Amino acid sequence: MTTVAAYAAPAAKAPLERTTIERREVGEHDVLIDIKFAGICHSDIHQVREGWGEAIFPMVPGHEIAGVVSEVGPGVTKYAVGDRVGVGCMVDSCRECDNCRAGREQYCAGGMVGTYNALDKNGEPTYGGYAQTVVVDENYVVRIPDGLALDVAAPLLCAGITTYSPLRRWGAGPGKKVAILGMGGLGHMAVKIAHALGAEVTVLSQSLRKKDDGLKLGADHYHATADPKTFEDLRGTFDLIVSTVSAPLDLDAYLSLLRTEGTLANVGAPEEPVSLNLFSVIGGGKTLAGSMIGGIAETQEMLDFCAEHGIGAEIELIGATEINEAYERVLASDVRYRFVIDTATI
Amino acid sequence: MTTVAAYAAPAAKAPLERTTIERREVGEHDVLIDIKFAGICHSDIHQVREGWGEAIFPMVPGHEIAGVVSEVGPGVTKYAVGDRVGVGCMVDSCRECDNCRAGREQYCAGGMVGTYNALDKNGEPTYGGYAQTVVVDENYVVRIPDGLALDVAAPLLCAGITTYSPLRRWGAGPGKKVAILGMGGLGHMAVKIAHALGAEVTVLSQSLRKKDDGLKLGADHYHATADPKTFEDLRGTFDLIVSTVSAPLDLDAYLSLLRTEGTLANVGAPEEPVSLNLFSVIGGGKTLAGSMIGGIAETQEMLDFCAEHGIGAEIELIGATEINEAYERVLASDVRYRFVIDTATI
Repeated sequence: MTTVAAYAAPAAKAPLERTTIERREVGEHDVLIDIKFAGICHSDIHQVREGWGEAIFPMVPGHEIAGVVSEVGPGVTKYAVGDRVGVGCMVDSCRECDNCRAGREQYCAGGMVGTYNALDKNGEPTYGGYAQTVVVDENYVVRIPDGLALDVAAPLLCAGITTYSPLRRWGAGPGKKVAILGMGGLGHMAVKIAHALGAEVTVLSQSLRKKDDGLKLGADHYHATADPKTFEDLRGTFDLIVSTVSAPLDLDAYLSLLRTEGTLANVGAPEEPVSLNLFSVIGGGKTLAGSMIGGIAETQEMLDFCAEHGIGAEIELIGATEINEAYERVLASDVRYRFVIDTATI
Repeated sequence: MTTVAAYAAPAAKAPLERTTIERREVGEHDVLIDIKFAGICHSDIHQVREGWGEAIFPMVPGHEIAGVVSEVGPGVTKYAVGDRVGVGCMVDSCRECDNCRAGREQYCAGGMVGTYNALDKNGEPTYGGYAQTVVVDENYVVRIPDGLALDVAAPLLCAGITTYSPLRRWGAGPGKKVAILGMGGLGHMAVKIAHALGAEVTVLSQSLRKKDDGLKLGADHYHATADPKTFEDLRGTFDLIVSTVSAPLDLDAYLSLLRTEGTLANVGAPEEPVSLNLFSVIGGGKTLAGSMIGGIAETQEMLDFCAEHGIGAEIELIGATEINEAYERVLASDVRYRFVIDTATI
């Protein structure tokens, strides 16, 4: 075991503070990563505050990890010391179920092992990326291509793959009209990726406050959802809407914006149930779908795609002492568009 | 105009009674059909009782029509006198929008013209199949193959196509586990069709009351949804669930029965909104979809498929004077499995 510095919430809803945690020794197939940057995801806050149910404390959040390999186990074949790598939302899974075999480890039948707020196969709690290092089995590590700076790459490990996966699955590309609902950490990545995939991209955001940014990032159109006229004007328009909002939303209204057989894919996750009129999907043969991050191979594919298209996140780099303030600003939607912690400051 | 006998509801929620209606002269592209049989669909009752909104009265319901061509207009090329034909839920559409061109006339951008409770292009009300004859443009008429008796073919025009279309779209076939939710008029057709498509078929019905019938019609398994154990035992089982129920249902519970990336396709239409926890689709990358009848070419494909596989509806043949009683029995789920009116009794 190695003791390293980290930022942790000692209890539910408590502010994060500097502490130390133990990292396991580097095993046969493990990679030791010197963490350079860790993104702050809205779900870090959900989990620290137990919005998604009872959690494990102390909690070191962080599942948008970018760093450099500093040691490898004797059985490691994919990575060498000095490689630039990333770790996303999971650090293990059963590797035997149909989903794991199909590269959909995020839907592992036995449950994936989360990067933090989870128990690993030995029953030990996992700790995330707000720390100096992390030890991860090489099969759950991805390579960050040379063209991508580590700071703007970190958020791709969750916000990037979470939006890339549904955009690919439901065919965003040339000739397709794609709407991105919400212009936050996930939404701004979705805009960049959908644009790079060749789709005609519309942002649907509560106000026009971030319109200039949206157009700069690749959106072709930008509409305010607070304006009822948006729903009249855009009725029956989109092949695909990717909803990144985690506030309750009027599903029927958004389904009305889809073309026949269009898809509303949800990656945002309101804590409360929402109301749905089934006629909203029956008339028009529409689908309401969900999607959760992506598999390991797909995450690598996404990173390669982003490097090829020069896509990184838009970030505000912060020091570790600013984490608690950053949380408040995320909750107030006051971030353009992702906080990334410089872990040298931990 | 030709005067013919029919059964109509004179006003909302009123019992149906014998009356006469006018049918238009046979136009250039029209077919005059001597109606032999008309199925009673649950949606006939919804519309007579204005459960789906304000309706047009007097109303002659009936969109499961089987009959024989008795006259054709000079421009008709597809049908001749004596041909066995059917008419389903629509008798016209704009023919110009993307959906009409793609053979998805049921989703016509301008709105399809319903077989009854609608206005045709001249603003005249349409009257359905509880009548001696009907005049329909040949492009909205389908051929009933010789192998299919007209009485058991009639319900295919709605119940058949409504279930065939989602079963095909979401890939019911060999190696796929398909559940049919509800064992009524739509459900029993879905069981037969899914079985003929080669899927492993499970019926999910409130009780085991119709289990023997279900297994006889082609189901491999039969479970009661009133038994909570059903939801434990079948968790994560199905590639596709087709829900035919029009009562409000616990979407989250049914979504939990799907495998990763599985689909819950709704063809039943509860009048009230239902509650949905979006985590039910996000975890597992699942989809909640809707489907409404099918296009004209697809309806013909379905009839050909049913003839090839010897599939007709299970029916109770009734006389016209029994229609009102039949409505009550449909509402009480007391029909195995479709009432069909012998229109010679009108």
